[in-house]
Formats: sequence, structure tokens, C-alpha cells
Amino acid sequence: MKKKISLAVVGATGLVGRTMLRVLEKREIPIEHLSLFASPQSKGKRLEAFGHSVEIQNLADGPFTADYVLSALRNSLAEKWLPRFRDAGAVVIDNSSYFRMKADVPLVVPEVNADALQNHKGLVANPNCTAAIASVALAPLHRAFNLKHLIISTYQSVSGSGQKALVELENEITDISFQPKVFPHPIAFNLFPQIGSFNDEGLCVEEEKIREELRKILSAPELFISVTTVRVPVRVGHSLSIFGEFEKPISVAGAYEQLHSAPGLIAMENQNYATPLLCEGRDEVFTGRLRSFPENPNALSLWVVGDNLLKGAATNAVQILERLL
Amino acid sequence: MKKKISLAVVGATGLVGRTMLRVLEKREIPIEHLSLFASPQSKGKRLEAFGHSVEIQNLADGPFTADYVLSALRNSLAEKWLPRFRDAGAVVIDNSSYFRMKADVPLVVPEVNADALQNHKGLVANPNCTAAIASVALAPLHRAFNLKHLIISTYQSVSGSGQKALVELENEITDISFQPKVFPHPIAFNLFPQIGSFNDEGLCVEEEKIREELRKILSAPELFISVTTVRVPVRVGHSLSIFGEFEKPISVAGAYEQLHSAPGLIAMENQNYATPLLCEGRDEVFTGRLRSFPENPNALSLWVVGDNLLKGAATNAVQILERLL
Repeated sequence: MKKKISLAVVGATGLVGRTMLRVLEKREIPIEHLSLFASPQSKGKRLEAFGHSVEIQNLADGPFTADYVLSALRNSLAEKWLPRFRDAGAVVIDNSSYFRMKADVPLVVPEVNADALQNHKGLVANPNCTAAIASVALAPLHRAFNLKHLIISTYQSVSGSGQKALVELENEITDISFQPKVFPHPIAFNLFPQIGSFNDEGLCVEEEKIREELRKILSAPELFISVTTVRVPVRVGHSLSIFGEFEKPISVAGAYEQLHSAPGLIAMENQNYATPLLCEGRDEVFTGRLRSFPENPNALSLWVVGDNLLKGAATNAVQILERLL
Repeated sequence: MKKKISLAVVGATGLVGRTMLRVLEKREIPIEHLSLFASPQSKGKRLEAFGHSVEIQNLADGPFTADYVLSALRNSLAEKWLPRFRDAGAVVIDNSSYFRMKADVPLVVPEVNADALQNHKGLVANPNCTAAIASVALAPLHRAFNLKHLIISTYQSVSGSGQKALVELENEITDISFQPKVFPHPIAFNLFPQIGSFNDEGLCVEEEKIREELRKILSAPELFISVTTVRVPVRVGHSLSIFGEFEKPISVAGAYEQLHSAPGLIAMENQNYATPLLCEGRDEVFTGRLRSFPENPNALSLWVVGDNLLKGAATNAVQILERLL
């Protein structure tokens, strides 16, 4: 029997926070004491977890004591509040991007680089949803064939921008004159190649995150990565069209051999593939449509889909917690 | 004043056929006699064109005489009936894929390879919608910098599969239990990397078309092309995420210089981009989000969108007709 822990879920009322609670229950994490924190507006409200109704506390009021913390705070709040928990002795697993690229913070996808957890200093970063999903499919191929170039185009669902974005999609579906507030353009029956604002390099925030985080997770700091991130009118599930070029020749059969034995992955054969609807609610990452190229024996293209709220966020965070326990 | 022509529109009742009529009107093609042909079920029905109500004739009944024919028939019917028009002296512009790759049939995007029209033998092929849209953006870059590798991921709208597919999307939006008939999976709030059936190489029909047709239109038979075609829940407008590698170094500024002077193209600067909703009803192709790569001075990525019913089908066909007149 595992030792029971005290756990704080911070940012518990958002889409990712609520999903964390469902995943903690499903995976039967042995919790002795659960505290839920959110912004002052949610103080006193209650959420169901592990068969109990738990009162939500105002984060600013503390106390900042727990064995472990799962955080779904946004960057500015993560920066402000999470060190308080860590300094009081907790191990914090943070879903914001604030700490991810810091040299002394492990950025972990347990199937890929669980060993990085050994060096944590009280704070572990949970990766960007798309980077986490991509890494589960790419790590086994990278290990066997050495990735050299990656060209990625994404198809990212609306839930990646939270509950308000999902409501915006519904409103636009039923009311063509609805003015978007969360997104820069209408998303119903539309799509756009922008997730976040643009940097000087011409990349949007999401593209830069995916590139930098994939390099860190795969321990491949020199890997050439071109990413185009696109928001699509899908509720849940991020899909990726990936073209990879490797140092070594790679065949479809050779790639399947690696993918079939890889953890957390369902490798679909014979041009089968997953759709976002199929992956919704699943913890695994799905690959399919593997294709090789007679003109370039070192290239492979594939289709990858995962649930952005689960493997892309809550499941991965809880898997990190499981490894730590 | 141009000579007035007799024109037959074949397959006039479908989404592309009806769009052809609207484009013929808008571009004021000088028509003396217009005949509309479709399947026996449509015989006797009428369509509005050029301010008149025109009766639809059963294609099998002929007559197969016209100066010019615009066809929106599917492959098997194009193969069967279009040679009858051509053999009777008409010049046929065909939107099906049946004749596109035949050596003696020009495959024409007027902005790119209008000169290929000189060698026509009574039949001109109108390209695949996505290939046509891509070629308008890629041809000016290819001419200046010599394309070597192309990696394309598409975001293709439901109207590419016709009127029934649009109805299927609407039905699925309002009724979650609706069973798809046109598509292999639900398309509402979903997407899938398959357009057409799969060949032995593992490509779906649309991917093979885009690769082969782009090579023919760009006169680049050896060009390496990897395409992944994805159907998305958008009504009208095909988008493409393109990564190109060139023989010569290419900068964003150098690319814009070519794109700004290219016909039929609107090149959006400063990380601006078009969405399918913005392009609906527009004849032009839109490019944006040009990005270069410090690690590879010969690479460029860009975002391309066009109206698949217009530049991807009807507008391109009518532009071919204009060149022939």
C-alpha cells in the first residue's frame, strides 16, 4: 500500500484543473488530504472530487503547504505563487509555460524522459500539450533513427484555449453575427494559423514553445524544427501532420517496430488513423498513416493525434506525480 | 468587341457547375448560345444564367455541338461524354481528373503555365483544387529560387466533396447521432487525414493528384513532394501549410518581391494571413506567414488559402476559356 499524500490542485476550476481531478480519481492516486485553490471569485464554491464535495480556497490566502501540488495556473500566477509552495517543501508539477525552459527545471513526458525527474529541485514542468503529444510518437523514432529535421503542421482544438473558447465556438455555430472575444478570428467553420502572439522571428508563441520544448524533451538541442500551429473548429484533440528526416534510413516496417513497443502509444497500421473524436477521453497518443519515400530513404511522414486535455495536460501531470510517488 | 461563342456547361447542376455559371456571368463571357447539360434526373429543370431561365438537357441526348464546353462531370462520365464534344469540334475544359495526367492534354493554371494551351488538341484539363491554389503561390518562388523539396499539409473544406457533403456537415452539427454517408467519419467538430481511397503507395487519391499535378503544372517532374491531405469542418476554402526547400538561398524579403509581382495572388505581409472565411468568394489566392530559417537559408515556410470552388475550380476553368478566346 502506497503512502497517502496531501495534494493541492491550484487553478482547480478551469478546464485543465477540473480534468486533473477526474484523472486523479481515475488513476486512484492515494490522497489523504486534497485542497483546491483558485482565484477569489471561486472562493467558497465547491467541486466534487473522490466522492466528496471540496470547498475551493482563495489561493492568495494559502496555506502553501502540501506534499505535492498540481498547478493549472496561467504564467503570471504560476510565477507568483508556485515558489511559495516549493519553498514550503512541496514538489510542484506546473502546467504553465513559465518554468519549462529553465535549465534547473525538468520538462517531463514520463514515457520519454522520466529520468530527468531525478534532478528536480521541487518544481517539475508539464509540457505544452502539442509538444507532449508529439514527443510520445517521436521519441521512439528519434532513439532508433536519429531525427535531423522535423516539419510539423498542427490541427489544434478549441479546448486548448479553455472553457471560454469552447463557449465562443458554440455561440458562433448558432449565431453567425457573434463577435469573437477569445480568438482573433471566428473559429466556427473557419481556422487560422496563429496560436498566441507573434515574436520577432515571426513565430507565434505556440510554435516557439513546441520547437523549444521538443528539443528539451528529446534532448536534441540542435534539431531543425519548423512548426506551423493552426486552430481548427474541433472541441477536443490535437492532431499533427509530421514529416521527419533522420540520420539513418527508416522504413515503415522499421518505424512500426519502434512504435509498437513504445509506451503510451497506439500505432495504427495499414493507413489507418485516429481522428480527434476517436481520441477524446483517451490517455494514449495515436499514430497512423506512416509513409516512406522512395526518393529519400531517410524520411518518414506520419499522423499523430492525442487528447490535449489528457495526455496534453492532466494525464501527463498525474503521470509525473505517479513517478514521483 | 469579342466574337460571341456557343458554350455548353456539362454537369451544370452540381456545386462546381452552378459556380461556373456565376463566374461566367461575373466575368462577362460573351456567350451567344448557352446550353446546360446534366443527368436524366435533372432533365427539364431550369437554372438561371445571364438573366434567363435555361432548361437543362439530358447529356446522353446530345447534341454534342458547341464552340466551347466547361465540364464539371465526374471521371467516368467525363471519359464517356467529353470526347463526343471534342470530336464534333468543341474545345473542352474539363474539371475531372480523368484527362489531367495524359501527355497530350495541357493541365493549366493560367497565371502559371498559360503557354501550355498552345498545344491543346481540343481538350484542356482544369487541375485539382488544391494543386491549382498551391501552384499560384509556388510558381513565382519556383521560378526565382528553384524548388527542390515541398512538404505540404492541407486543411480542405467540405465543399470540395460537393453539395451532399455540405448537407452532411449541417446535419451532424445539429444531430450528434447523424450517421455519415459522404465521408468515412463524422466531419462536424472533427477532421481526418484522408481524401479519397488509398493506393498501394499509402497515399490517398487527393495526395497523389496534388503531387503529380503540381509536378506537371510547375514543369518540375523530379520535384520531391510530400503531401498530407486533411478534411476539416470548414464549408468553403482550402488552406495549405507549406514548407519548401530551394536550390538557391531565399529570404522572406526576396520571396515577397516575387509574390507581390505575381498574378492572381495577394501576398500578406508582417505575419498577416488569410482564413477560409476571408477567402470565400474571392478569385485570388492568398499567401501569408512567410518565415525563413537561420539554420537553413534555402528554406521558407508559408500559409496559402484559396476558394476551392473559385480558383480551385470554376474561376480557373473560366480563366482558361478567356485565354482561349
